[in-house]
Amino acid sequence: MIDNPYYSQENHGPYELHEIGDLMLEEGGTIRGCKLACAAWGKLNRAKDNAILIPTWYSGTSKIWEQVYVGPGRALDPEKYFILCVNQIGSGLSSSPHNTPPPFNGPRFPRVRIGDDVRAQHKLVTEVYGIDRLALVVGGSMGAQQTYEWAVRYPDMVARAAPIAGTAKNTGHDFIFTATLNEAITSDPAWKDGWYDSSAEVHLGLRRQARLWAVMGWSTEFFKREVWRTLGFSSVEDFLTGFMEAYFLPMDPNDLLCMAWKWQRGDVSRMTNGDLAAALGRIKAKTFVMPIDEDMFFPPRDCEAEQKLISNSEFRVIESLGGHLALFGSDPEYGPQVDRHLSELLATPA
Amino acid sequence: MIDNPYYSQENHGPYELHEIGDLMLEEGGTIRGCKLACAAWGKLNRAKDNAILIPTWYSGTSKIWEQVYVGPGRALDPEKYFILCVNQIGSGLSSSPHNTPPPFNGPRFPRVRIGDDVRAQHKLVTEVYGIDRLALVVGGSMGAQQTYEWAVRYPDMVARAAPIAGTAKNTGHDFIFTATLNEAITSDPAWKDGWYDSSAEVHLGLRRQARLWAVMGWSTEFFKREVWRTLGFSSVEDFLTGFMEAYFLPMDPNDLLCMAWKWQRGDVSRMTNGDLAAALGRIKAKTFVMPIDEDMFFPPRDCEAEQKLISNSEFRVIESLGGHLALFGSDPEYGPQVDRHLSELLATPA
Repeated sequence: MIDNPYYSQENHGPYELHEIGDLMLEEGGTIRGCKLACAAWGKLNRAKDNAILIPTWYSGTSKIWEQVYVGPGRALDPEKYFILCVNQIGSGLSSSPHNTPPPFNGPRFPRVRIGDDVRAQHKLVTEVYGIDRLALVVGGSMGAQQTYEWAVRYPDMVARAAPIAGTAKNTGHDFIFTATLNEAITSDPAWKDGWYDSSAEVHLGLRRQARLWAVMGWSTEFFKREVWRTLGFSSVEDFLTGFMEAYFLPMDPNDLLCMAWKWQRGDVSRMTNGDLAAALGRIKAKTFVMPIDEDMFFPPRDCEAEQKLISNSEFRVIESLGGHLALFGSDPEYGPQVDRHLSELLATPA
Repeated sequence: MIDNPYYSQENHGPYELHEIGDLMLEEGGTIRGCKLACAAWGKLNRAKDNAILIPTWYSGTSKIWEQVYVGPGRALDPEKYFILCVNQIGSGLSSSPHNTPPPFNGPRFPRVRIGDDVRAQHKLVTEVYGIDRLALVVGGSMGAQQTYEWAVRYPDMVARAAPIAGTAKNTGHDFIFTATLNEAITSDPAWKDGWYDSSAEVHLGLRRQARLWAVMGWSTEFFKREVWRTLGFSSVEDFLTGFMEAYFLPMDPNDLLCMAWKWQRGDVSRMTNGDLAAALGRIKAKTFVMPIDEDMFFPPRDCEAEQKLISNSEFRVIESLGGHLALFGSDPEYGPQVDRHLSELLATPA
């Protein structure tokens, strides 16, 4: 176990840790006493039909949902809904390489798949909260992967689904992009096959991965129009260090690699012997597929191809020069679009 | 000096080495006895008005122009034109870090700018060949940067210009992409601040840079449709190693870094105190601006913004799922489009 103050209640809370027992994993490993870190806003009503589930994305936690997406008067309104945000396995808050005791710590943390997260969340939702139908599952990026997994795996439990900036089956291009992120970390000699003593030792690898994120995470137009200035930076270099490196530096490398492995292999067609159309055909949820127009690695056309395979679905493109990282909410025109689509989706009987 | 058999007549020839004397550089250095490696096809006519100049791109040499672009019946027809392809400084064939004797060898090779290359080429074209007007300057990527530089710097000498998949002023996004390529190499401990004994020592860094190229060089659709299969590969991993790594592995890291530094800073507005409109306004050449629709780092909209600043110009988009690396010519639908545009351009009185 590595003591990493970044993953604290102070930074990411309040959240509650729920232990859901031993989680047997698709790849053969087991997370013993699996813990899920959950943030919740609003109250579950008596009928238990006002629950919204949010799975988290790579490197992100429930905190950014609290800060950017949830609030009174928003689509995700805690005055109307019981909103449960479950931090994914490997996020650093839930069971993760850095917070697991030996011998399954660090690089010995077992391989986890999107399906494992969703089964763990299902156990939490049904057994801890007694919810048997979710009004909405919504998530961005890896959260979208989990949203698709939910809608395919438990079609009767998901009334509505809103995968934002993500795919049901990860693409070959996305796989190799993620591989470069991982290599940026693992090529740092200080990574020591995952046996570093603190994330600070691996800072050069983390800094390199941060800069790769800058290239693919935003958009060419984000840099052309110097949108980074609106975030308070004085030059591209200032932004790369002051924003991108600052964001990733405190994170645990093994945690990031755990999530990346999962991201690379997200694929709902694993449930239907590789038949993607059959998998997406199982979805009963009213689904809004919501890519971001400038996203360089979950491009709208990839999302649209999947949307066409979902019967009760609509294709809702969010426009933002932020590209994929518009998810961070720094574009003031992003949030209102998300709210508009989600409000409409939530108003649709399902 | 490093003996590197990759940069040989056998691999890249036939080419001729022309020494153009000492080249004083914009950044203050000097290349003493600067050599330019030139391939030429066809014959210069008596009027000396049938010359086409081709500057090369990052990592590419005159060989790929011979193999993919030049030939009887093609737009670049050696039966009609005298076609001169000048390998850029740092290419490994012309004066470059790896082939320069001490003390200016390797990482001590001076900083070179696009303008230095173009001034060197101007000296060659005028003094060696006695040409005072070029029927066409055409180049891809960094070759496009040099094409723009030619048309702005020597407006009376360039009758026609065809910058393919490149910009007159490099973008901020492109700069940081290139920086990640450089970091992939320089973060390899075997790079030793540029004082490696052979490129083979730096193979891990070169392999990583090859994989970054895979992410940005082709297109998401190239991988979606598994276009790599048409190149004879059995999986993405097979392609990444068998094509991308194979391509970059034999190259000299300092040579690549020399070109990359130049690429990052390409900017014709250096000639007009930073006024890009004024710089492009100097162009007299009939210009076809030819981006590739799926290019991820020289996107068409960046090229179009520049095209609008060139008075006698047209915007001609090449369609290819190959993205930027469609330049390699592996897409059978790419060459005919280039030929169609260049033939039309060459048929235009200028």
